[in-house]
Amino acid sequence: MKLAVVGGGSTYTPELIDGFARLREVLPIEELVLVDPAAERLELVGGLARRIFAKLGHPGRIVTTSDLDAGVEGADAVLLQLRVGGQAARNQDETWPLECGCVGQETTGAGGLAKALRTVPVVLDIAERVRRTNPDAWIIDFTNPVGIVTRALLQAGHKAVGLCNVAIGFQRRWASALGVTPSQVHLDHVGLNHLTWEFGVRIGGPEGENVLPKILAEGGDELADMLKLPRSVLDRLGVVPSYYLRYFYAHDEVVRELGTKPSRAAEVAEMERQLLAMYGDPALDEKPELLAKRGGAYYSEAAVDLAASLLGGGGSPHQVVNTYNNGTLPFLPDDAVIEVQARVGRDGATPLAVPKLDPLYSGLIAHVTAYEDLALEAALHGGRDRVFKALLSHPLIGQYDAAEGLTDRLIAHNREHLAWA
Amino acid sequence: MKLAVVGGGSTYTPELIDGFARLREVLPIEELVLVDPAAERLELVGGLARRIFAKLGHPGRIVTTSDLDAGVEGADAVLLQLRVGGQAARNQDETWPLECGCVGQETTGAGGLAKALRTVPVVLDIAERVRRTNPDAWIIDFTNPVGIVTRALLQAGHKAVGLCNVAIGFQRRWASALGVTPSQVHLDHVGLNHLTWEFGVRIGGPEGENVLPKILAEGGDELADMLKLPRSVLDRLGVVPSYYLRYFYAHDEVVRELGTKPSRAAEVAEMERQLLAMYGDPALDEKPELLAKRGGAYYSEAAVDLAASLLGGGGSPHQVVNTYNNGTLPFLPDDAVIEVQARVGRDGATPLAVPKLDPLYSGLIAHVTAYEDLALEAALHGGRDRVFKALLSHPLIGQYDAAEGLTDRLIAHNREHLAWA
Amino acid sequence: MKLAVVGGGSTYTPELIDGFARLREVLPIEELVLVDPAAERLELVGGLARRIFAKLGHPGRIVTTSDLDAGVEGADAVLLQLRVGGQAARNQDETWPLECGCVGQETTGAGGLAKALRTVPVVLDIAERVRRTNPDAWIIDFTNPVGIVTRALLQAGHKAVGLCNVAIGFQRRWASALGVTPSQVHLDHVGLNHLTWEFGVRIGGPEGENVLPKILAEGGDELADMLKLPRSVLDRLGVVPSYYLRYFYAHDEVVRELGTKPSRAAEVAEMERQLLAMYGDPALDEKPELLAKRGGAYYSEAAVDLAASLLGGGGSPHQVVNTYNNGTLPFLPDDAVIEVQARVGRDGATPLAVPKLDPLYSGLIAHVTAYEDLALEAALHGGRDRVFKALLSHPLIGQYDAAEGLTDRLIAHNREHLAWA
Amino acid sequence: MKLAVVGGGSTYTPELIDGFARLREVLPIEELVLVDPAAERLELVGGLARRIFAKLGHPGRIVTTSDLDAGVEGADAVLLQLRVGGQAARNQDETWPLECGCVGQETTGAGGLAKALRTVPVVLDIAERVRRTNPDAWIIDFTNPVGIVTRALLQAGHKAVGLCNVAIGFQRRWASALGVTPSQVHLDHVGLNHLTWEFGVRIGGPEGENVLPKILAEGGDELADMLKLPRSVLDRLGVVPSYYLRYFYAHDEVVRELGTKPSRAAEVAEMERQLLAMYGDPALDEKPELLAKRGGAYYSEAAVDLAASLLGGGGSPHQVVNTYNNGTLPFLPDDAVIEVQARVGRDGATPLAVPKLDPLYSGLIAHVTAYEDLALEAALHGGRDRVFKALLSHPLIGQYDAAEGLTDRLIAHNREHLAWA
Repeated sequence: MKLAVVGGGSTYTPELIDGFARLREVLPIEELVLVDPAAERLELVGGLARRIFAKLGHPGRIVTTSDLDAGVEGADAVLLQLRVGGQAARNQDETWPLECGCVGQETTGAGGLAKALRTVPVVLDIAERVRRTNPDAWIIDFTNPVGIVTRALLQAGHKAVGLCNVAIGFQRRWASALGVTPSQVHLDHVGLNHLTWEFGVRIGGPEGENVLPKILAEGGDELADMLKLPRSVLDRLGVVPSYYLRYFYAHDEVVRELGTKPSRAAEVAEMERQLLAMYGDPALDEKPELLAKRGGAYYSEAAVDLAASLLGGGGSPHQVVNTYNNGTLPFLPDDAVIEVQARVGRDGATPLAVPKLDPLYSGLIAHVTAYEDLALEAALHGGRDRVFKALLSHPLIGQYDAAEGLTDRLIAHNREHLAWA
Repeated sequence: MKLAVVGGGSTYTPELIDGFARLREVLPIEELVLVDPAAERLELVGGLARRIFAKLGHPGRIVTTSDLDAGVEGADAVLLQLRVGGQAARNQDETWPLECGCVGQETTGAGGLAKALRTVPVVLDIAERVRRTNPDAWIIDFTNPVGIVTRALLQAGHKAVGLCNVAIGFQRRWASALGVTPSQVHLDHVGLNHLTWEFGVRIGGPEGENVLPKILAEGGDELADMLKLPRSVLDRLGVVPSYYLRYFYAHDEVVRELGTKPSRAAEVAEMERQLLAMYGDPALDEKPELLAKRGGAYYSEAAVDLAASLLGGGGSPHQVVNTYNNGTLPFLPDDAVIEVQARVGRDGATPLAVPKLDPLYSGLIAHVTAYEDLALEAALHGGRDRVFKALLSHPLIGQYDAAEGLTDRLIAHNREHLAWA
Repeated sequence: MKLAVVGGGSTYTPELIDGFARLREVLPIEELVLVDPAAERLELVGGLARRIFAKLGHPGRIVTTSDLDAGVEGADAVLLQLRVGGQAARNQDETWPLECGCVGQETTGAGGLAKALRTVPVVLDIAERVRRTNPDAWIIDFTNPVGIVTRALLQAGHKAVGLCNVAIGFQRRWASALGVTPSQVHLDHVGLNHLTWEFGVRIGGPEGENVLPKILAEGGDELADMLKLPRSVLDRLGVVPSYYLRYFYAHDEVVRELGTKPSRAAEVAEMERQLLAMYGDPALDEKPELLAKRGGAYYSEAAVDLAASLLGGGGSPHQVVNTYNNGTLPFLPDDAVIEVQARVGRDGATPLAVPKLDPLYSGLIAHVTAYEDLALEAALHGGRDRVFKALLSHPLIGQYDAAEGLTDRLIAHNREHLAWA
Repeated sequence: MKLAVVGGGSTYTPELIDGFARLREVLPIEELVLVDPAAERLELVGGLARRIFAKLGHPGRIVTTSDLDAGVEGADAVLLQLRVGGQAARNQDETWPLECGCVGQETTGAGGLAKALRTVPVVLDIAERVRRTNPDAWIIDFTNPVGIVTRALLQAGHKAVGLCNVAIGFQRRWASALGVTPSQVHLDHVGLNHLTWEFGVRIGGPEGENVLPKILAEGGDELADMLKLPRSVLDRLGVVPSYYLRYFYAHDEVVRELGTKPSRAAEVAEMERQLLAMYGDPALDEKPELLAKRGGAYYSEAAVDLAASLLGGGGSPHQVVNTYNNGTLPFLPDDAVIEVQARVGRDGATPLAVPKLDPLYSGLIAHVTAYEDLALEAALHGGRDRVFKALLSHPLIGQYDAAEGLTDRLIAHNREHLAWA
């Protein structure tokens, strides 16, 4: 079994490697190719990756290359974890929307649109090259915005599944709290990528008892702290929104907060600098503590589980993934990409049935899906008007003057990444 | 033919009477009953109504009564134009949402929810009494929020159609601009009550040439002035939003504006006072000029046209009304109430087919429909939590802290009208 | 010794009575007259007042009357604690400014201007009547906005001193924390009423050691909690602002908060209702617990201390009062009213010297003093333009559109209290 | 007579040259030295400068140099028109404050503080070098923020006067409107740099008739358009604020506007690029049209007039300049720098007497002066806390959370220009 990781030079990669090493029974990788155009950085990361495999006794071979075609050749699955424009672009995404009174975030709102516009063409190009050399490989997309990117891949006919770590994070949290194994915790997780709610937490599987009311009663305060929402909101809803819903439920509060804190640029850049310095130390043979602060917990577990199932191995029968709606949420088009529990196997992902949603959730999902549709149009075809329409359609924007200001800034700050601009 | 107008003591009634008188060929009313609990005011209005009929040579009889059952007995159609809580409640609806940074408007946003909560139970009670005395009568609802009220009526099994004057206003405007008769102007009018866009303006009927591009090119500046939106927004969209879309597309701008102007209370109350003083003058036998400033242009024309069709007479074959979706907009539930062109006849209204909408519109329509669903739940069943959820679900609110503040204020200011509060 | 309390029917009066009873050594009152036009309420309060005196063994006589002239005749000092327009007006002051995006508060910003406009003419009328019957009586003003009201009284040539409980509250708090008696704690308290900072906390008197750095180091977190400001702000400033500074330092945060909470109307009205019900109980002979929640702690102590000094008795030599600046703060006009430590005796209050203030404080003080000047002009002479100018001059408003909207609302909501409107 | 212009390589310089050439009777320059470290740019500008002198027949010599000491040697006056950090820094100043909900402007608010912090040390260094080589030279400062920079220069004992073109702009405008020569128009111009109002417009001199009421009555609409304030505001005030007051009187409106427009970066950079391309054309021998769009009208006239007076020539007897208050505005410290009419001669500038200001103006002036004091402290001594205090003291900021966010951003974006950061 051969896997390729595009964007393998990310400072995040050791987390993934650590997971592959620990879970080698589930996913017996023989060769892992880290592909990245940033050759120097890739060598630092690749060196540590090999030392982690060695330390944990993983027999697989780790190859590093900046040649995409060579790297993906013969791969059974290709993982996409790239970041077009790097942390500099991310910092921009988090900053200029604030000038227009809108949240600055790399996956939600105007910043998320900027990321989609930068990313979709690059991912489609990579996918096309994968398809040419390796038409049977599965593409597993971690690259944000996962919903829009996955839709772009599926629309172009690729064998793709989108993956996010929100669901697995809740699963592990509650497994631990309830004293059961993660695999016993089945989430009624429904929505769009970064716009999901846990409608139930079931023990043993989709038909298991729903312990969410108990979780809220006993752990509501901690959950509220983690989500930075008042406990009363959780109690009123009776469901658990993902952290990203805070950008909706507390939009103006977040905007104020972001305006009163330093921008994240310096912080993240400094952390990356430190991590790379550590990776270069030949004595380091495990993922450093600091990496945990960078986010992305349990990504590797989710990736191993998904790859195992797609490649015919022993992954979990039901996994939370991003895939075509196909009638699962009847108020959305079939070709919308949703994030739900799905049966996953060699033939891909098929959503489990979802009971009728309360309009409090379906209305917002429908609205954001419409935005994603227009965002993908803008990413594929470009043009100032398409950008404006996507921004105007977003429920967090919706006003013409903000949309105008955001359109100008999105284009000005991303011109080098936008072929049409 | 007998018609009853519930809320007939409104200062607006002379406008309706004037239309009935002018259009007596289309709708040959023999008896018109004005029903209103405010007996004194009703007499002032009724007196003028009789003088208008007399002056314009209408042979019909005008009866005034505060007895609803007596008033609607034998009526072929019952028009609802009541205002629960009167101008005082309206002024509240326009005011307290501003304290939470939200638009204060009597049909949109939190103010619209307040009005729905006050109105739905009263309208359902009236409709039930109409049904008891007069099961075959059509109920024509002008009472705002028309979409939610109509849905409440239809859900309760009433023979009801909802009516608004936004479409007829555009029709008359463009007929005049294009030099054709109003009946030649067919609008591709789609959406929800007070959330509509004109997607096309066709000459001669649903298959006629679309002259909207020409209208925008030649009259875009005037339209933009009327809608208080920049011309560039109209050009970008290529369609014409109703005035109420300004509360969405320019929400924050409107909030600021409302905060820098006197509240409308004094203004409207003064106008009502002046109008009633005029109505008491036995020499007055036509609607006074001042009435035109009160809004509601062409309502009588629309009402006559609709009643004529419902009662089997010569109304227009296609009219813009509020009725069940029934698959017309495939992304909405069948029992959503939409505002579109419909074939209207003795058996009620059946929407014409609508081509696929751009996501820029369907996303917002779906979101507001979800709000309307929850708003109706709150209106029917009451309770602080239902109010909170309806407010949180509204795309103009959406944030928990605003929803909290609005919930408190809505209840505090409407307690006397809310049985459950 | 005879004292009169104008507004003696306030639910707050039992607090004052309790203080008079406990501190009868300092201020040996022989007759206390409670004056209030609300006769029924006055009787409830007066009854309890007599029972409190009786229980605590105070030999003084308590008289109640609605006749101002009779009540103040022969009084050595007249205390003003009235509220023109009552809690209803207060609730308005706290509400309509929010519609314009400004803080709604009864002494600060637009609400404070409304209160000044309602109150100044009433207080001047009372003072004039006091002067006619009783030219030697001291007027002690608790009535807010104390700064503007005191300036109005002094400008009209009255023997008046303004009093607030902010300073005594800090004094008692820190005395308790430091384990000393209150009289040992001397505050370097400087500013305008409700715009003050403690620049030093000295043990033993004006020349004592400044323990403020120690207080901040050890009790900064609790102080920050009480003031609802971040600890870091206290540390940066190195001084302790009064709670009212939060309306400046966290204006927008407060506006949001006020918009997400119920308005205080119901809460305060309910508390008043409960208190009056208690007062009517002939078995009650002490101030009820509930009264402590109503605010105004230590007011009676401050009043006794001040009256004792003004009337030649044993009050503290230095007290924090509101009186003419007379060069104390060199950047303000002599006839500005400031709130500082003063020597108080039979001849009134004379500010102690104040060291040069940091511009961080003097700039804001100068700006608010300019507002108070214009506010007093508006209160004395009326007129829409004067109201507009006072609002535009306030550092929390300062913008023409907010000033316009606030002017309209202030006048509309206070018309009955404004002779010129 | 020899003049040196530090920052002589500015694209604006041809405007100045044109004025020197036209007004050579008033200011007979024999040698003009353009000093700028940007040698290449300086040559382009210097070349055009020489061609303009030649075309207009000015006999003076124009020298270009990047050596400051050499350039200022022997100069009678040194003009400062530099821009530390160039247009890039300006663009930053206009941008990041918006992220915190504050106006982004290069002289007002947080952007202005950033500019002060970058500029004061550079200007003081230049002034010190001028003093060493040339202790008798006058320093004329155009460099913004002129008020703070002039105060820094005066405090350090330099022979300096600050100059702005706001007053001369009004003077020329009204001279033209009234059909008189500019020298006949005397403005009652009072305030701080970029915080001024015209309190009177007098014909013939300080004692002439005040025609401002007439100007407002006849030209109020045009003035309001120019100032982007409603006519009603001008009528209410009865005085004419400078354009910069809009950042105060309409702060939130401006913030919204800036958020809905492209940032100025591209625009200004493009204009500079075009201008420099033009300047390189040896056929160009006059200031190009495009230069007029860059702002700075009448600066050369003002500079010539001022230099002529300072150097003993025939400048106007009264000129609007920035200099020490020295009791002119009694509510400000003597060493505050104000912008008023002054008698100007060989011994510098002495303010004319100013009648008592309405508190509507003095309150704001006092508040901003306090900010300028703290801003200068921060510029001279650096440190995060001083920056925070200056920001918190600014009437357009005043809130701790905005001040925190702005402090972080100011430092992050200007680190390379701040020795202490």
